[in-house]
Amino acid sequence: MPFPNHIPTKTDIENTHERISPLIHRTPVLTSRSLNKISGAELFFKCENFQRAGAFKFRGATNAVLSLSTGELKRGVATHSSGNHGAALAMAARLQNIPAYIVMPRTAPAVKKNAVKAYGAEIIFCEPTLQARQETLDNVVERTGAVFVHPYDNYTIIAGQATAGKELLGEIPNLDFIVPPVGGGGLASGTALSAKYFSKGVKVIGAEPAGADDAFRSLRDNKIYPSVNPQTIADGLLTSLSEKTFEILKENLENIFTVSEKSIITAMRLVWERLKVIIEPSSAVPFAAVLENKDFFEGKKVGLIISGGNVDLDKPPWNN
Amino acid sequence: MPFPNHIPTKTDIENTHERISPLIHRTPVLTSRSLNKISGAELFFKCENFQRAGAFKFRGATNAVLSLSTGELKRGVATHSSGNHGAALAMAARLQNIPAYIVMPRTAPAVKKNAVKAYGAEIIFCEPTLQARQETLDNVVERTGAVFVHPYDNYTIIAGQATAGKELLGEIPNLDFIVPPVGGGGLASGTALSAKYFSKGVKVIGAEPAGADDAFRSLRDNKIYPSVNPQTIADGLLTSLSEKTFEILKENLENIFTVSEKSIITAMRLVWERLKVIIEPSSAVPFAAVLENKDFFEGKKVGLIISGGNVDLDKPPWNN
Repeated sequence: MPFPNHIPTKTDIENTHERISPLIHRTPVLTSRSLNKISGAELFFKCENFQRAGAFKFRGATNAVLSLSTGELKRGVATHSSGNHGAALAMAARLQNIPAYIVMPRTAPAVKKNAVKAYGAEIIFCEPTLQARQETLDNVVERTGAVFVHPYDNYTIIAGQATAGKELLGEIPNLDFIVPPVGGGGLASGTALSAKYFSKGVKVIGAEPAGADDAFRSLRDNKIYPSVNPQTIADGLLTSLSEKTFEILKENLENIFTVSEKSIITAMRLVWERLKVIIEPSSAVPFAAVLENKDFFEGKKVGLIISGGNVDLDKPPWNN
Repeated sequence: MPFPNHIPTKTDIENTHERISPLIHRTPVLTSRSLNKISGAELFFKCENFQRAGAFKFRGATNAVLSLSTGELKRGVATHSSGNHGAALAMAARLQNIPAYIVMPRTAPAVKKNAVKAYGAEIIFCEPTLQARQETLDNVVERTGAVFVHPYDNYTIIAGQATAGKELLGEIPNLDFIVPPVGGGGLASGTALSAKYFSKGVKVIGAEPAGADDAFRSLRDNKIYPSVNPQTIADGLLTSLSEKTFEILKENLENIFTVSEKSIITAMRLVWERLKVIIEPSSAVPFAAVLENKDFFEGKKVGLIISGGNVDLDKPPWNN
């Protein structure tokens, strides 16, 4: 069933959640007295690292695949992705027995390449530039007739990502804030829509690496800046906002906090050590934002979206 | 309220569970399609790495502290421990505002020493031998009048550890097997009692490192062998059975499987990578036993007790 081509409404997100629920995990919300004590806030970690394919991206990808027409299903789906969206789309396609073509930069982490391969997709490698990505993808689409599923400039995807925040709000209804990480803005814009539709005034604050702060600058100056030479270990947050995510975020995001690389590593290690769960660097960015802004979050109930857990176990960043 | 000095009955374990429930976490049971596929069994991971103080040991320690008389509470508790029992007893004591004295080998992992310290206990270091442990502990008890809480040769402790298996059986009632790791046998004997009392024929199979296989040999030959110079990365499983745990295990344990160090590391890494949770090497021993005995467990529903998650993040064993 084709997805409506407008900013997802409350009903669109409810329908999306119903449609994808049989395929996704309803991920747990974890808490830690010790991390509450360290941060001074009351934290609720929505653990999308336990989502299928290891990241929230499976929500949007599943919604995209389930929204294809019969003719489109035959030709399959294609995308470019530094990792998690590619793996998610590969798995979502496999569950419907349709082909998936994933354009990946050669520099993507091995764990993410292996996941895409394991889910049976065809990988097409490219140089790690936006231009190479796009050209390679265009060639793939021309060759195969597959439907391009953009990682975030796509309302179907955004509605899927919104369901993580919707679940969190359903489980912990009296939150003050939700903090998602901001890369291309798919998760952040979905979360902001869910907060608007499914809560009474929960504010959404994006968290972004200072070394990849294009979204912060874009919202400040009200124009989309490209992400030029981003420098961060948060490899899921290297991309810039798109027209669709920018449009939603500028209306619905309370603020964006940027964080240092040092804070990201500290936050990531604390989550591994105290919460006992494996998260990737991008997932540590919201907790890093809390640690860098203790006065702001003091005594508040804060939902943090742990976006994924696909990390190279040979190279935790504190061992570099 | 003093705990009865006999093998815990069904009622003893039920009472224990009720008594400690306000203080312990009811830990989640996680599953992974990918680990099911790799193992050929249907696996249910009871995640005591999410327990307070990071290990199942908090269950028994809490039961021990709550069983002290008014006079005993004043003098506090003492124990020797390579780590998790010490941290658990320290935290359990702190929650009742009583003193705790923990004798630890100098060689214990830093993360475990730090935990005991953070929970406000007094640490007394000793050489890493059974004799030094015992002598140091005797001195502490003489000096302070504290009550010695043995890590496992203690029915109060065993009844506490039994509640992990009881919860697992309550949540997944149709298991075929439960596999706990075997060190001193506190968790294994508690689990075996819970399977006897709270299931219809679930079999308990211990898992032990081949490099520390004293329990395997003890049960085979029907006499307690000391653990002499054990060689394993599973630092929670270095101790030998005691009279009380041996007595319970020889009646109630179906079998013990021993596993190689290589399997332990493989299993630990798979759990980090696929289940996305941090487990310590001892916790990987049950899954290693499944991986080494695929024919035996094929198609079965198997509960695995993840005993703890206190591991030095600087030194995952695959980086050595």
